[in-house]
This record gives sequence, structure tokens and C-alpha cells, in this order.
Amino acid sequence: MGDTGIRTGKAPKSEWGPDDEHGATNRITPESRASIMARIDGHRVYDLSVDYFVGMPSFQAAGDPAYQIWMSHTPRGTVVDNLNGVGDQINRACGYSGDVILMYTHTGTHIDALNHFAYGRETYNGFDADAHLGSRSWERAGSEQILPLIARGILIDIAAHKGVEVLAPSYGITAEDLEECLAAQGTVIRPGDIVLVRTGRMQYWPDGSRVFGDSPGLTVEAAAWITDHKVVAVGADNEAVERTPSFDDENWLPGHCHFLIDHGVPQMECVFLEDLSRDKVYEFAFIGAPIRLRGATGSPIRPLAFPLAE
Amino acid sequence: MGDTGIRTGKAPKSEWGPDDEHGATNRITPESRASIMARIDGHRVYDLSVDYFVGMPSFQAAGDPAYQIWMSHTPRGTVVDNLNGVGDQINRACGYSGDVILMYTHTGTHIDALNHFAYGRETYNGFDADAHLGSRSWERAGSEQILPLIARGILIDIAAHKGVEVLAPSYGITAEDLEECLAAQGTVIRPGDIVLVRTGRMQYWPDGSRVFGDSPGLTVEAAAWITDHKVVAVGADNEAVERTPSFDDENWLPGHCHFLIDHGVPQMECVFLEDLSRDKVYEFAFIGAPIRLRGATGSPIRPLAFPLAE
Amino acid sequence: MGDTGIRTGKAPKSEWGPDDEHGATNRITPESRASIMARIDGHRVYDLSVDYFVGMPSFQAAGDPAYQIWMSHTPRGTVVDNLNGVGDQINRACGYSGDVILMYTHTGTHIDALNHFAYGRETYNGFDADAHLGSRSWERAGSEQILPLIARGILIDIAAHKGVEVLAPSYGITAEDLEECLAAQGTVIRPGDIVLVRTGRMQYWPDGSRVFGDSPGLTVEAAAWITDHKVVAVGADNEAVERTPSFDDENWLPGHCHFLIDHGVPQMECVFLEDLSRDKVYEFAFIGAPIRLRGATGSPIRPLAFPLAE
Amino acid sequence: MGDTGIRTGKAPKSEWGPDDEHGATNRITPESRASIMARIDGHRVYDLSVDYFVGMPSFQAAGDPAYQIWMSHTPRGTVVDNLNGVGDQINRACGYSGDVILMYTHTGTHIDALNHFAYGRETYNGFDADAHLGSRSWERAGSEQILPLIARGILIDIAAHKGVEVLAPSYGITAEDLEECLAAQGTVIRPGDIVLVRTGRMQYWPDGSRVFGDSPGLTVEAAAWITDHKVVAVGADNEAVERTPSFDDENWLPGHCHFLIDHGVPQMECVFLEDLSRDKVYEFAFIGAPIRLRGATGSPIRPLAFPLAE
Repeated sequence: MGDTGIRTGKAPKSEWGPDDEHGATNRITPESRASIMARIDGHRVYDLSVDYFVGMPSFQAAGDPAYQIWMSHTPRGTVVDNLNGVGDQINRACGYSGDVILMYTHTGTHIDALNHFAYGRETYNGFDADAHLGSRSWERAGSEQILPLIARGILIDIAAHKGVEVLAPSYGITAEDLEECLAAQGTVIRPGDIVLVRTGRMQYWPDGSRVFGDSPGLTVEAAAWITDHKVVAVGADNEAVERTPSFDDENWLPGHCHFLIDHGVPQMECVFLEDLSRDKVYEFAFIGAPIRLRGATGSPIRPLAFPLAE
Repeated sequence: MGDTGIRTGKAPKSEWGPDDEHGATNRITPESRASIMARIDGHRVYDLSVDYFVGMPSFQAAGDPAYQIWMSHTPRGTVVDNLNGVGDQINRACGYSGDVILMYTHTGTHIDALNHFAYGRETYNGFDADAHLGSRSWERAGSEQILPLIARGILIDIAAHKGVEVLAPSYGITAEDLEECLAAQGTVIRPGDIVLVRTGRMQYWPDGSRVFGDSPGLTVEAAAWITDHKVVAVGADNEAVERTPSFDDENWLPGHCHFLIDHGVPQMECVFLEDLSRDKVYEFAFIGAPIRLRGATGSPIRPLAFPLAE
Repeated sequence: MGDTGIRTGKAPKSEWGPDDEHGATNRITPESRASIMARIDGHRVYDLSVDYFVGMPSFQAAGDPAYQIWMSHTPRGTVVDNLNGVGDQINRACGYSGDVILMYTHTGTHIDALNHFAYGRETYNGFDADAHLGSRSWERAGSEQILPLIARGILIDIAAHKGVEVLAPSYGITAEDLEECLAAQGTVIRPGDIVLVRTGRMQYWPDGSRVFGDSPGLTVEAAAWITDHKVVAVGADNEAVERTPSFDDENWLPGHCHFLIDHGVPQMECVFLEDLSRDKVYEFAFIGAPIRLRGATGSPIRPLAFPLAE
Repeated sequence: MGDTGIRTGKAPKSEWGPDDEHGATNRITPESRASIMARIDGHRVYDLSVDYFVGMPSFQAAGDPAYQIWMSHTPRGTVVDNLNGVGDQINRACGYSGDVILMYTHTGTHIDALNHFAYGRETYNGFDADAHLGSRSWERAGSEQILPLIARGILIDIAAHKGVEVLAPSYGITAEDLEECLAAQGTVIRPGDIVLVRTGRMQYWPDGSRVFGDSPGLTVEAAAWITDHKVVAVGADNEAVERTPSFDDENWLPGHCHFLIDHGVPQMECVFLEDLSRDKVYEFAFIGAPIRLRGATGSPIRPLAFPLAE
């Protein structure tokens, strides 16, 4: 207990050293990259992300803003206001359009940075909020510290394996589910992989009433099964990777704590897996890199999946 | 002239059809992708982007906001306000951090969408603002319409070729400069390439006083030389790809109009080319995809460059 | 019909001249001000506004953001980030707190400016959007043009008169309702007054489910009865002053158009009238002035009501 | 010293009790209000505030955003996007305009709330950030706790008294200056007054290069002279009320700490005093109330000054 009763001292030190901010993305090596890149068949590519737009569903229950975009310059408006200072004649000839966006960093297809959760004040690698959280952002383990995600990707299509359109609300995917699905798919997880789990939820995007709430997802035991495989990152086509709401009386998002704090594994949410599922692409090259928002707890990402050559 | 004297009728129809919104990114084919992806040596990868942070330089002369990030949830704050509703005990045990960003879409390493500029009200493919510009954003040719940029990339390192640290302020790069530099580098531009031009400006990042203002960049003639080569996209390590300020009395950014409206070629700005320059990597696989901000005139992008196998 | 089929030509010219932007607030004269101010009994004062806070209800159905506040400086955060540049020692001694707000201008207790609605493109006094709407804001008839509202105020407490807690959903208050209520109250409207109508809705604030939606309010006929009395401004304890939804097939908010465009009468919404109602204060000095947001279609206002001396 | 070396324990308890959040605004009584309101001559009124607009000067040195306004609905845009859902015909007939604002709460004519500064973590009345600062805002002593400012107002026109257009940069106004000026004006400060000090700076508004920076203002001794008079609030036509930069090696804004923490006196900045100065109105009724931004460290305010009857 610290002075104000906030629990501290539980966040483990990183296996990559006391200053490390990259976490499991350290597992990406020149060799691992070269190995997977050499196998790509570039004829096809899958986009695993969705659009941002006004009215898109997002997590607002804790007061965060819905995604916003506003025009800051329009062709007609610039003729009126001349904000660019180039004058009436040029603005009539040359129409200027610009826009401004506002978003909670955990909106749309995005990745959670390692500092998104903490035990008390201690986030990944024991970085303490009192020492490293500025007025505006964390100064440690933000989204810019996630190394470019270039690795073998594995889809574990639980919904397809179980023969359902979508997993039941709050269904907890077990380690057995993962093992059985992988066996049926004929795929094997190896150290350094990026694992994507499909519940079926994102087929309803952008209908927030069907995508969000009481989400099927990983149990903590299944999360541990995944981290035991020394993965680089994890993702899912749902709101939290893990199931919601929490079944843990002492932790509202224990899967987040497991992946981010305990194991330094960044996690991607609202990943669009429908095309991979339809085409039964279970193994691929995953290439994605979040926008480098310094210190941010999350960031938009637009991952691409390349099938491999036979 | 339209009713209010705004010039219209000049934006050419797209060679990809009257409804096309993808522009030159249509030039990417399964074959072109497969061809370049097959040549990658994945041992090395270059990140061509920079961080977003409070205080970073950006274009604010026309009233756009500087990049902002704010915490919406902090470990200590959540103990006080319980915005997530999970209660004191859990919030003391489990620290929640979240953040919100605000940015002009033309901030940091970003790509200009085809609707960023217009002749009068007509942007790429003749899409008219009166018909397609909503209150919040364009409904045509936004950043989400830029297909994933997977193509052969070419660096034209003008600063290095001329043996200077950085090109002179407002220096206009000519077609001859491009040809001579390519010849010296031993590189050839082919249809379907992505061309990156280096002025040296981004070596000073994030010192805005040295990166921005009176920028060296392409002349309109050099821009035309590039579009004659049927490229997919263009980029540079400066604020506008083209030189600034404009030398055209009737157009404040004629290079933008040339690339975006006339040729459907999206252009990337503030691209970080220092590492490629240092290592003399002039040919590479370019992999980048902007965040899909529907309708937006620009979007953050984090491009990666992979050297090719010998 | 204009070129794009937007109806124009219907907004009447102002009785206060072709350049007028103040509308009915022109009715406030030195004499009218002196007259009402001389009658004030300052022992009591009523605050007719409510707090802004994260989670407060607001109109978001058309994509506008919920009210937001974020800290930009905190005592602990400033020790970490030193954004003010004064250094560790001073920041430990002297804790700095600052915050940033974001809001739709029609949030909380606010006033609608005369440019909030238009016939086609023509707002109050025929100001045309094509000539006067910049990229960022209108350049005519914004909230800063509403003169300080210092006038005799009249409460018309319809809910109390009808002996109900709150008027029925979508109940249309008629001119007869207004007349009967005034007669029962013993109050008379005079030119230059500010009229506040009570439906009972704001007693439920901040429970948005009870304050907003299918709102009782003025019929257009009742609005006309009020403007016939040459008032300065109007207000109500509901979301739109008029009833919602509209009973007019050709206009979704005909009361707004009546007050703002046709008569230049600014209207206040979400006015807190519970204390005045409880104390049966039907006549008072109204003193309020919106924050001067140049060009804005609305603005927060914190009106005060002073009872009059006997 | 607390656990992290942040100094605490210095913020005095309030004379208005351990739970008080109103500070010196408690000095306003029914009698004091009635007394000053009874003396008003309403023929004239002075607006002591300025407009908010894109490009207005503001304090951005510590990363806060410049004032922003964006349209969220425009007449032409709504015809295109139908965000209000009422359909093409109605949107062509009835043009909808709406806008969104973003601002640092210390922008334009505004008031600093008592929680704006702290000794270590302790703000006014010893409220501790660890106990009362949520993720989004303080939960104590915010701008909504400032009671409506209705009191006798006194202008101390130092610039006029000294016969200068504007006081010299960083000039420190002394207690002697205040006394001499008041004597020359023939005005006396009494308990319960609101005191406004004029340096001349706001005559240059909105030229930020002349309004802001190295500001003349109160010395700490002069601030103490004012608080000794048991005022309700203080204000000035400059950026910080006190002179800047600080002459105190241990405190970057000692005047703020003096007024806000030590004495519970809210302070107003960028108050427009030019008209009062021109007309030599040194005594008046001050009526102003900040927008009720719950928990905010500052808030826009539009104060009015009414001359008194002879």
C-alpha cells in the first residue's frame, strides 16, 4: 500500500531489462522478420481495419468522446474568411479543404499500449505514474514504443470452429477451445507470432448494439495459454480481447492486466477478421504499426495480412 | 464561373472512371504487389514516420490547432472519480489510463487525400463540394479511399546528390535535378512506383523553425515529370512536397493541385528519410496505409521501407 | 430556388436596417434598462443556469460531441513534465492546475444566436451563408451580437397554472394557455420584456431521459403571440422552447425559424426556472449576457433574475 | 514533504469553514447586494469582456490549445449529409447551423477559480489533489463554486494616474501606487468590494504581441494590501493580475497563490477596462457570473459594470 492506499509493488519487472518499454515486441528479430517476409505471396492482401466516422460506435460509458471530425477549411468558407491569407482571387480558383479529428485513443481498430493498465500506479515494467505520468500523457511505454509489428500471424477462428455465426454473449474462450480450434485448422503457434482470435462480433460492425457489450472473449486462463507461447502481440474482433464483463471480483479487466502489465504483450481490439475467416487464411504475414502517439495508452492501427506462398 | 464566382469546370475526369475515388492507387495490382513483395529482404526495415507530441511543430498559420493529447483516465484520478463505475477497491488495485487526441489531419508524417484541394469547388474527378461536402467531412475521395500503398519505392536523394546538408530555402527542384540524381544513384522510375524526394529538411525535426517555412521542394515541372512516370504516390521530407511559397500568381499550391486533382496522386509530407539516405537505400518495398478517416482530407500514416534482396 | 435547389429569398429583412445583427435586442434602450434596474430589490437573486460536467445530457443525435473537460496541467503531472518550464523545485512547491473544455455551443443553459437557423441559406436579415459563412464560423449575427440582456423578465409558469408537475410529452402550449396563465398570475407582457416559459422539464435535470425528448413547448401560434408583444428575447426550461417533434411537415423546428429568422428574437434553452416557480416570482429584472463567441450559433449564458421591490 | 517530495501542509484552512469552496465570494450578503443594486443608474452599462475568435491571442507556452471553433452543421452541408435525419426537402428549406468550441479555460476575459493553484498538492482550504482531483477535473473549488459576483466595483486606474498610455513592461504596482491612485480618484475600498486594476495593456487587444508578455501588474505586497481590505474578487486588464515574470525565486506566480490559496479571492484576467477609464467611472455596480464549468480551474465570464446614480 502506498500513502493513499493505492496498491503498488505488484507489477513485475520486465524480462527485457529495467528500462525496457517495448515489451514483447522485442521478440521481433531481423531473422524472424526475414523469415516471414520471405514467405509472402503478395497477390492478395487483407485489410484488418475499419473506417473512422461520425456516429461510429465506441466506448463512451466512462465519459470519453465519440469520434469527431470537423472541417477547418472548406472551398466556399475560405472564399469568405481567407484564413490562409492568399486572397479572394486565388481562393476562388483554388479550393482549400482541411479537417480536424478528435478521438479517444481506444476507438476503431486500435492497439492498447503497455501503459493502458496498471497495478495501483505501476504499469508495465513497474513504471510508476507518480514518476512518469505527466499532465498530458505517460512518459513511458506509450504507443510509440510498440515496435513495428512484422511477424507471422495466426488466426484462431473460434466462431467458425464451433459452427456459430457469433459466440454467445460473455462466452469465455478457454485454452481448450484454442487448442481444439488450432488442431482443427492445422495451425501451430510458435514463439514470436501474433495471434488473432475471432469471435464473430465484428461482422456486425458498425452496429454498435451488436458489436459491443457482454462480449465473448478470452478467459484469463486462455490469455495465459497464449502468453505461454511467447507471442509478440494479440488481437481480437471484439471490444476487449478478453470476455466482458469481468468474472474477477478484484479486477475489472484482468485480461488487459495479464497481457499488458504481466507480459508486455500489446493487444489489438476491433480487428476486422471477416475476410480472413471467409477465405480460411489461418497463417499469414502480419504487418502493422500504430501511429506514433508519444506516451499514448492506445493508437489507431491499420494492420495488413499477407497470405503465404505454398 | 458558378453563381458566386467560384471557378469550376477545370477538374479533369479520372481515367479510372466517373465514380473513381482511388486515383493513382488503382495502379497497384496483384501482380505489382507480388513482384515487389517477392524481392524483400526482411532483415532490415525503416520507419519513415515521426512521433506526435504536445509541442510538435505543425501548420497553424491558417488557424488549425496544434496537436493535443489529454488524459481522460488516470490511476489516481479514477480512484477519485470512479468514472468507470467499478468502485474504489478495484480502482485502487487496477489503475486505468486513457487519453484523447486532437489534431489537424495534416500534422506529422501524413498523407494528403485527393479531396484536399479543388479547382473552385471541384476536387479530384470533378466531385463538387456542393454535392459531396457534408457539414463534417467530404463524402468523396477521402483518406479511406487511398488503397494500401504496397509498391516499389524509390528515394531520390537530391540533397545528397548535390552534396549539401539541406537544399536552399525555396529551392525549386527541377526535372533535370531528378534525372541527374537518379542517374547518379543508378535508379530508374517505373510505372506503379512510389517516389520519395529528399530535401534534407526533416533532419532538423522537431525543430519547427528549421523544418518549416520557405521550403525547398518540387517545381510544377518536376511534379509533371513524376506524374508522367505513372506513379502511385509521391512523398517528401518537407511540408508540402512542392516548394513554398508558390511561384504561381494564380495558385498558392500548384503542386498539390497537379498531383491531387489533375493526376489523382496522393502525396505524403514530413516523411522521415534520414535513415534511408544514410544507408543509401534508393530502391525498396514501400508498405504504408493511412488510418481510414472517412472523408478526411489527410491522415496520419506510418510507412515502412524494406530493402530488397540482392 | 438557387443553383442547387436550396430555397432562398424568404428570410425577411430586419426592421432595424439591412446591416443589423442585434435583432430584437435592439429594443433594449437606456430608458428601459434604467426603468427595470431602478426597481430591483437586491436582497435575493436567482441563478437560472446549471452546471457543465462530463456526463451531462445534451443533444447528440446529429453527431455533436458530449461536453468534455480535460486537465492540461495537474500538480503531480507538472512535476513530471515541467510543461511550464519553471523547473522541478518550483513545481513541487507550487502546484499548477489547468483544463480544456470542448462543447457543442447548444449545451447546458444556453442561448441560440440569430444565425442558428436559415431559410435555405438565408439567416436573420437575409444574410446568406455563401457570402457570410466562413470555414470556421458565421461572420454575421453570431452570439457576440446579442446585446447584454437587461430587461424586465416575465415567468409564465404553465405547469404550475395547469396544476401539473410537468406538461405532457409534446404538449403544444397555445396562445390561450399563455393568456390564461398570465391572467391567473396577474402579470402582463410589455414591449421590451424577456419572456420565460416553464414546462416543468428542468426539475429533472440532469436526468436526460426525463429532460429531453418529445418535449412540451410552444406552438408556432403561441410563438407568434409572444413576438406580437415585441419582446427582446424568449426562453424556456426545455430543449427547444417550442414543442418537439415538429408538427410542421415542411420544417423540423418552425419555432426556431419564427423567433430567430422572422423576428430576430434570440431564444434560451435549458433555463432553470424551478426556484422562481417555487417562490412565485413572475416579474423580475433579467440580467444575462452570453459569452461572446464570435460568429457562434449559440453560447453558454448564466442569467440572473432579481425580484423587484414592492 | 509528502512521499514524492511534493510540498504540502502550507495551504491555510479557510475562515469560512473546513468544507468551504466559495472563498471570499462568501462576503457577498443579501444586504451588500441590495445596497449596491439600489444605487444603480441603468442608463449606461459597460461590457468588460472581449470576443472569442480563431486567432485570438492566448497563453500557449505550456502547450494549451488556441481557441477553436468548428461548424458541426451548415446549411449546405446538412443537405449533403442529413445528419439531423429530417431529409432532403426539409434541409433545403430549413438551413441548420451549429458549432463546437474548444478552449483552455484561461482564455479571453476569464476568472481563475480557487483550485487553479496549489501549494504542492493542496489548493484553497487545503483540498488535496490526491483526494479531490479526478481524471477529468477537480471535484472541489471549481469555477461553479464562485458565487455570482454582485458587488460594489472599484476601478484603480494606475496607468491614467501615472499619465502613461500603458505601464512599463514588468512594472510592479505597489501598495503606494494603489493608495495614491485611489486618493487622486477620490475613491475608497471597502470590505466586500470587487477591485479592478488597470495597466493599459488591454487597449492593444487583440494584438497579442502587445497585450501579453512581461506584464505590468501587482506586486505581492500590493496584492496583500488588497486582500487586507477583505475584497470579494480582484481583476485586471492583463494576463496574470500580478506582474510577470515572477520576482520570487521559489514561486512562479506568487500573486496567484496569494489571492487564490491564501485568501480565497478569485481573480479575473484580460478584463476590458478601456471604456470605464475613458469615462472615469471609478465606482460602479459589478455584475458578473462565470459559466458554471464544474470543477474547472477557470471559466469565461462576461462582467457588466453599471454606473451609480448621483
